[in-house]
Amino acid sequence: MNYYKHHVFFCLNQRDDGGPCCCDRGAGELFEYAKSQAKELGLHGKGKSRINRAGCLDRCSEGPVVVVYPEAVWYTYMDKHDIDEIIESHLKNGKVVERLKI
Amino acid sequence: MNYYKHHVFFCLNQRDDGGPCCCDRGAGELFEYAKSQAKELGLHGKGKSRINRAGCLDRCSEGPVVVVYPEAVWYTYMDKHDIDEIIESHLKNGKVVERLKI
Repeated sequence: MNYYKHHVFFCLNQRDDGGPCCCDRGAGELFEYAKSQAKELGLHGKGKSRINRAGCLDRCSEGPVVVVYPEAVWYTYMDKHDIDEIIESHLKNGKVVERLKI
Repeated sequence: MNYYKHHVFFCLNQRDDGGPCCCDRGAGELFEYAKSQAKELGLHGKGKSRINRAGCLDRCSEGPVVVVYPEAVWYTYMDKHDIDEIIESHLKNGKVVERLKI
C-alpha cells in the first residue's frame, strides 16, 4: 500500500523575474486552506492524503497548479470553492474533478 | 501520457525543533547535485524527469528521503553515489533501486 493514498503538491514558487507565478495567484493562502481543511475532515496523514509544499512545478503559465499523485492528475484552482471540490471529490471520494483538470 | 515520466520530490524541510531532519543530513546539497546531473544527462524536463523541491514529506526519522511518482517509490540516500544510482537505474532505465528503498 502506498504511504500516502493521495499526495498533493502545491507549487509555491515565488518567481522574481516578473513571469507568471503560482504564488502571485493565491497559491500560498490556498495551500494553507487546503491543508487545514484536509486535517479538519480527517483526511490528512499516513495512509490518507498529504497536502505538501513544493517548489516550482514548471507549469507557470497554467498556474496556480497542484498535482495529485500517484494518479498524476494536475489541477488549476482559483478560490476556496475549487479547493473544497478537490478535497471532497478527489481526496475523499476518489473522483477526479474534470472541470479543474489541466 | 504523464506530464513528467518521473516526478522526484526531495524533502528539503529544515526543522527547528531539534528533531531529525532531512536538511541536516545533506538533502539540500544532494538535491542540487541530483538536479544538475539529471539535466546533464538530458533526463530533465517535460515528458522526462523533474527533480523537485518539496516541503516536509513527514518521514523525518527515515530521512533524508525522496519520493518518485507516479511509482510512489520512496528512497533514502547518503551521498552522491546513491543519487547517481537512483538517476541511472530508476530515472534512466526504469529499474527501482531496491537497496535504497524504504
